Amino acid sequence: MGANELLAELADIGRTGSGGYSRLSWDPATMQLREWFAGQAAAAGLELIEDGNGNQVAWWGSGPDALLLGSHLDSVPDGGPLDGPLGVVSALAALAQLRAEGWTPSRPIAVANFTDEEGARFGVACLGSRLATGAIDTAHALGLKDADGATLGDVMTARGRDPHAAGPAPWLRSIKYYVELHVEQGRFLAPFGAPVGVASAIWPHGRWRLDFCGQGNHAGATAMVDRYDPMLTYAATVLAARELALDSGQRATIGRVQVEPGSTNSIPSRVTAWLDARADSAPGLEALVAGLVERAEIAARDDGTTVEVRAESVTGAVDFDTNLRHRLATLLDAPVLPTGAGHDAGILAASLPTAMLFVRNPTGVSHAPQESAAAADIDAGVDALVRVVRDLG
Amino acid sequence: MGANELLAELADIGRTGSGGYSRLSWDPATMQLREWFAGQAAAAGLELIEDGNGNQVAWWGSGPDALLLGSHLDSVPDGGPLDGPLGVVSALAALAQLRAEGWTPSRPIAVANFTDEEGARFGVACLGSRLATGAIDTAHALGLKDADGATLGDVMTARGRDPHAAGPAPWLRSIKYYVELHVEQGRFLAPFGAPVGVASAIWPHGRWRLDFCGQGNHAGATAMVDRYDPMLTYAATVLAARELALDSGQRATIGRVQVEPGSTNSIPSRVTAWLDARADSAPGLEALVAGLVERAEIAARDDGTTVEVRAESVTGAVDFDTNLRHRLATLLDAPVLPTGAGHDAGILAASLPTAMLFVRNPTGVSHAPQESAAAADIDAGVDALVRVVRDLG
Repeated sequence: MGANELLAELADIGRTGSGGYSRLSWDPATMQLREWFAGQAAAAGLELIEDGNGNQVAWWGSGPDALLLGSHLDSVPDGGPLDGPLGVVSALAALAQLRAEGWTPSRPIAVANFTDEEGARFGVACLGSRLATGAIDTAHALGLKDADGATLGDVMTARGRDPHAAGPAPWLRSIKYYVELHVEQGRFLAPFGAPVGVASAIWPHGRWRLDFCGQGNHAGATAMVDRYDPMLTYAATVLAARELALDSGQRATIGRVQVEPGSTNSIPSRVTAWLDARADSAPGLEALVAGLVERAEIAARDDGTTVEVRAESVTGAVDFDTNLRHRLATLLDAPVLPTGAGHDAGILAASLPTAMLFVRNPTGVSHAPQESAAAADIDAGVDALVRVVRDLG
Repeated sequence: MGANELLAELADIGRTGSGGYSRLSWDPATMQLREWFAGQAAAAGLELIEDGNGNQVAWWGSGPDALLLGSHLDSVPDGGPLDGPLGVVSALAALAQLRAEGWTPSRPIAVANFTDEEGARFGVACLGSRLATGAIDTAHALGLKDADGATLGDVMTARGRDPHAAGPAPWLRSIKYYVELHVEQGRFLAPFGAPVGVASAIWPHGRWRLDFCGQGNHAGATAMVDRYDPMLTYAATVLAARELALDSGQRATIGRVQVEPGSTNSIPSRVTAWLDARADSAPGLEALVAGLVERAEIAARDDGTTVEVRAESVTGAVDFDTNLRHRLATLLDAPVLPTGAGHDAGILAASLPTAMLFVRNPTGVSHAPQESAAAADIDAGVDALVRVVRDLG
């Protein structure tokens, strides 16, 4: 089956009312996607392993110096159909095509479905690849809690997994290269007229938790001048984030906020928000966040509130392996572009030569139901992956 | 028992981790409070009725032209101990004292525990008194949904109540006066050195739902200039609300907000917020909300987003009965003050002569765990109520 046909098989799994997808790690939708992946591996005669972190890897052959393809099957809440299933289905389609052609690899080839790339459930992105590479402390990761207060350890146990098996994964030692295909997030390729591009680097990025505290009070009976309302400080911080990111050419987003007590007729006592910030350099990211903290503190002083800022995860710049990137860009005659988005490839890049291919996104929309790519561009992505496997494999 | 002792009996019901109270209508805490109220009525030899809306009324005597006391036992999420249990326990304590003194009323006296005064569960304040007086359409009220999507009708059925019995309540026709004692919300009485005051009026107030819509997208890969981020429009609206309310001497609060998809690495597609606005006159309230809508629309135009505003409930000014108010202020030699907060007394005031007594709040904090009153002031409130009952009853 081609990649478009494989995607069609997933069309109903985790579908939301708005036509998007909510597939959070270990939820019923991703469990169904795991089963689907296992079925695909079996049908193709690939040997499936699942490591202690829930990462699924389907092998064509075994031994050292393997070429790894793949991506992830989870999504953000109400995300699109392609980030990251496109990378998984393209890898499966590419291998199917090569096998149908009778091509024989000179090294083992594997396809990964990494667990919880989006970090939508436990707050840390690329959790599966971070655990497998040891980029996150295992005990810390197992203690991360979801919105219902369940830890990753609890959730894995409830799904029949043994949390003691989590952590650095032996299978990764057999991998020589990782190539992840992904839908483009942004509109870099469209003006080039190119269906496929090669990634140069991932911007440094991170998540910060901001706690704004004030004095809860009655919304009707408390004069405006007698208030210590953290919602005001939060609002000023949201606008400062835009201003600072615009001025510096970086990116800052606040897409998640919680209010206590969260009642229409109560002045909040606490507003908790999560900042997603990205920049083209580590010092740029540092300056962006420091500038924002300063602005939030000034607003808090004016409002009689307090603000506390804590980094939840910060990932430095990832420059993909220079040799591999040039080799693929030359092979595919493809434009080279940086990305503001994090990926499992960014985590693996610290351990082994890694590259990414992007498939053109006509609108640039991602992490939303409208995320799309033309069917012909998806086929072009598979074709590019086939050429990469022939070259590297 | 005195009012302070009665309050102590409620100290553990619906207690939150922060030392406040979450007692939402028909939840386990308010069911326990209903049982407690029924027990108090039985112990005092009062005859308890519950109307089709869940309002409990304990009667000393029967017949027409009754004097009604009381308040409510529900709270906002993480609210304080006094709004409105103080009114219920003070009424019970006042009647106990009068009976102990051998005083005999000339008319029936009743104590009410009105259901869902705060509107924290179904979004409409004073739901019990609105239903009982016919101030809200019964079918509309029964269809209101809580955060879990359950309707009021469903919830009442689950608690063994018959939703068909909801609506205008016959017992209210027997009431000649309603006097509600309440903890002060604000700091008007403290500078007077007065433990008890009399209400003049309730400001016009209402709740508006604001829906800000934009384009969900990837937080890392979308350049700032390519965004249509409704969180920005929301933030500008929060700050405009403060500015407009400050400038006009009115009150505007946004204490509840929901974000879709609500993910750290996604630009939101929708932000929904609830505005609580109050003003010293109906035209003042109208001008405040109209000004805010205009500011929100300007911000939306700048941000490439949209905003829709819908009134969820608007309550006009309530001027408490002039004769009754002067009579009580003279009787108690008490200062007279307006309030920005809504109350069941404000609903009943449309049907019958109604008055409110306020007990001094040293910090002015209400709808928060820190809400308090001195034990001596609580006793002074009961004493005032005793004098009112002697005078009216």
